[in-house]
Amino acid sequence: MARSRLRFNAFAMNTVSHIHHGQWRRDDTRQRDYLEIETWVALAKLLERGRFDALFLADVIGTYDRYRGSRDVAVAEGLQIPVSDPALIIPVLAYVTDDLGFAYTHSVLQKHPYVFAREVSTLDHLTGGRVAWNVVTTFLDSAARNLGFPELPPHDERYRRAEEYLQVVYKLLEGSWEDDAVLRDAQNGIYSDPDKIHDIGHVGEFYDVPGPHLSEPSPQRTPVLFQAGASEQGRDFAGRNAEAIFILGRTPQSARTNVEDVRARAARFGRRPEDLLFFQGLSFIVGGTEEEARRKEREIDEYASDEGYLAHRSGDLGVDLGQFDLEAPLSELTRSNVHGIIRGLVDAAPDKSWTFRDMLRYLGDLRIVGTPEQIADELELWSDAGVDGINLMYHTTPGSFQDFIEGVTPVLQKRGLQQREYRPGTLREKLTDGGSGPRLDERHPAAALRPVAASRVAGSAL
Amino acid sequence: MARSRLRFNAFAMNTVSHIHHGQWRRDDTRQRDYLEIETWVALAKLLERGRFDALFLADVIGTYDRYRGSRDVAVAEGLQIPVSDPALIIPVLAYVTDDLGFAYTHSVLQKHPYVFAREVSTLDHLTGGRVAWNVVTTFLDSAARNLGFPELPPHDERYRRAEEYLQVVYKLLEGSWEDDAVLRDAQNGIYSDPDKIHDIGHVGEFYDVPGPHLSEPSPQRTPVLFQAGASEQGRDFAGRNAEAIFILGRTPQSARTNVEDVRARAARFGRRPEDLLFFQGLSFIVGGTEEEARRKEREIDEYASDEGYLAHRSGDLGVDLGQFDLEAPLSELTRSNVHGIIRGLVDAAPDKSWTFRDMLRYLGDLRIVGTPEQIADELELWSDAGVDGINLMYHTTPGSFQDFIEGVTPVLQKRGLQQREYRPGTLREKLTDGGSGPRLDERHPAAALRPVAASRVAGSAL
Repeated sequence: MARSRLRFNAFAMNTVSHIHHGQWRRDDTRQRDYLEIETWVALAKLLERGRFDALFLADVIGTYDRYRGSRDVAVAEGLQIPVSDPALIIPVLAYVTDDLGFAYTHSVLQKHPYVFAREVSTLDHLTGGRVAWNVVTTFLDSAARNLGFPELPPHDERYRRAEEYLQVVYKLLEGSWEDDAVLRDAQNGIYSDPDKIHDIGHVGEFYDVPGPHLSEPSPQRTPVLFQAGASEQGRDFAGRNAEAIFILGRTPQSARTNVEDVRARAARFGRRPEDLLFFQGLSFIVGGTEEEARRKEREIDEYASDEGYLAHRSGDLGVDLGQFDLEAPLSELTRSNVHGIIRGLVDAAPDKSWTFRDMLRYLGDLRIVGTPEQIADELELWSDAGVDGINLMYHTTPGSFQDFIEGVTPVLQKRGLQQREYRPGTLREKLTDGGSGPRLDERHPAAALRPVAASRVAGSAL
Repeated sequence: MARSRLRFNAFAMNTVSHIHHGQWRRDDTRQRDYLEIETWVALAKLLERGRFDALFLADVIGTYDRYRGSRDVAVAEGLQIPVSDPALIIPVLAYVTDDLGFAYTHSVLQKHPYVFAREVSTLDHLTGGRVAWNVVTTFLDSAARNLGFPELPPHDERYRRAEEYLQVVYKLLEGSWEDDAVLRDAQNGIYSDPDKIHDIGHVGEFYDVPGPHLSEPSPQRTPVLFQAGASEQGRDFAGRNAEAIFILGRTPQSARTNVEDVRARAARFGRRPEDLLFFQGLSFIVGGTEEEARRKEREIDEYASDEGYLAHRSGDLGVDLGQFDLEAPLSELTRSNVHGIIRGLVDAAPDKSWTFRDMLRYLGDLRIVGTPEQIADELELWSDAGVDGINLMYHTTPGSFQDFIEGVTPVLQKRGLQQREYRPGTLREKLTDGGSGPRLDERHPAAALRPVAASRVAGSAL
């Protein structure tokens, strides 16, 4: 059977240690140079040579302070702290590239939607329609506290807020300026036509935003929408709103279950299952021979910091994993009176004779190790499971990306699994292989908020 | 007497029509190309060739909707709408220049200080210490309403908020990370030292921010602080906090009064009068002969849009100037029962036989017209009045800057009134001719919030 291509994102973060902790200490990684724009410029150019679809910049606005009740380990490990603003490097990277996309994470707790809408419009203009937004609701208590919340709002409330936040952003980006609002008519002295710019008149539970939007329409209007929710509510949210979904399936089979579930939800919201693209997070260790790949793997494992992974996982789960003995067998963990989340993880371990350390490493590293051909074979399994793309999680940067692009990409291109050239147009058109236009399709909930509808809702704007 | 040099900022905005309305219609201006990054790249390179100190990017986050009770004129005139995010073009402009500084406007209503502090740290890293922040409190009611306020908070409350906002930002930027907190110690696996990163523990009227700051220390820590307040409270705020102040004196004499007043306030807050630099806003029309300059002036006046100025001024003053007849003599205006603000303006008119239109044009255009020598002569008067720099308000871009740099700059450099080369170091060091180090001096209120003091205030952070 002819497989459709996989899309490739480079998963990175404007920080020292993103996913694979301890590797920053190596001499052959540029993680310590994250503050130098040349580090990012070189990466973006490499990714574009390797025909990657996008650079995906994660973000947090708090610290991982669950582990042993402090942020000490996170700070020492450079674990997502210090962390610089991801949005601010995108304009430079767009300036030095032509086709690469740029996804970045922004939490709905972080900025007011009126301000954020102008930010993404500006980025969409500056990138020529190559920007994507990864919508998150924030999971770190410390982030919420620093943003003026007494504590992290409950999960339900965060998703309610996220839905309304998206509504406001959709109204501003899609519903405020008509397509022909901007005339640039020097002859008659009319830059924009006042009759074609509408108030949005949003009144809601969390936000009251009269409008209008401050920016003129950008190539994509709404940026490509990424999401990564795994809970019931998160999947509904993704099914309703997302165009691309970041998943972390342990196996192609578990990815398939997840993909099919969210596609079914999308269909229930009036969208087509194929309106959503699923990106699986994976790491790769590439060798000219399997032996070389295994040698590289051992070196990576030597640098891996268990404490870094523990601190990271403790933050993700909201549980202090410092209370468990790394050398204890899993059977001992399950016998003790452990937190439900831990019990669930232990149940998911494929080998019950493992120690807690084994399981931690397993959780921390979705890796494929081998020759380019072996890796391509594995990627076929992911593709067959319904996955549309890969978020490549590096061990070293740009090393992991370079190894992949030099070794695996040519093999994938030969098999039709990775693109040889970029399609023209916006990121939305590129990602969907032209299946979508530059803007959100008519089935997306934002489409209902376009000018005609908006003026009906908001009344006469002027 | 030997005069010290004047500093020069290019005053611009990521929009169509910033200050001089109607000019965007000309073929010899690039205002309609504000969305193209190349427009800005070319301008930044020109300014650096002309040894300008900084590009100053103004901003608003609302619309001018006072005039005739609607935003229609603003929209048609491109009057600060559409307006793109200024912060997002700075990284690109820093990438293509080495010495030019970048000031940008950000309101304390716009983003939470915890988020904003990371933004300015990131910009300070990306520019190598060349960023400045123009602190504003917002004057447009529409901005406040879109940001979740029922209406524009009263003037007093905005300044109280601004003071606290600065406190939070100072604590994050100056008080959270000690100078030697970042070790980058690969050998021992310690990126940052947890003992040297402090919570700020801010609890206030408007903000509760535990901290710590998310970014590692940048070259300047706190960006160079610009301010432009003219009210009693605004001048106190500037005297306490600002390093550079944007003024709009009608004459060198009135500028002097203003400069001396704010310098005296600074002294009352324990700072030195010379800790503040004053930038006068001026426009220039340069000709090879006076006649040529006058011809250019007539052309500019032909393109000037009275309605644009009326809408702009109505927004600034919070008064609908649409109620007055442009052809009416001032005497008629003062006879009628006009708003106090208008009466004040009329009283300030140097010629009482003017019409309202004459006064409007006078208010809208602080211009110097003539040959380079004539302009240099005039600038000497401003320098003698105690002004430290000029914010050049363009009629056309890059034309106005180019005319100045090609015509006036060489004359000024010969007279020692404009720098011939940039000084090394951060924007703060460059602007003060080395009078200051890269960071805020010890007399500035932020200095009291540095680590030792911060940990005393906030208690043990870890």
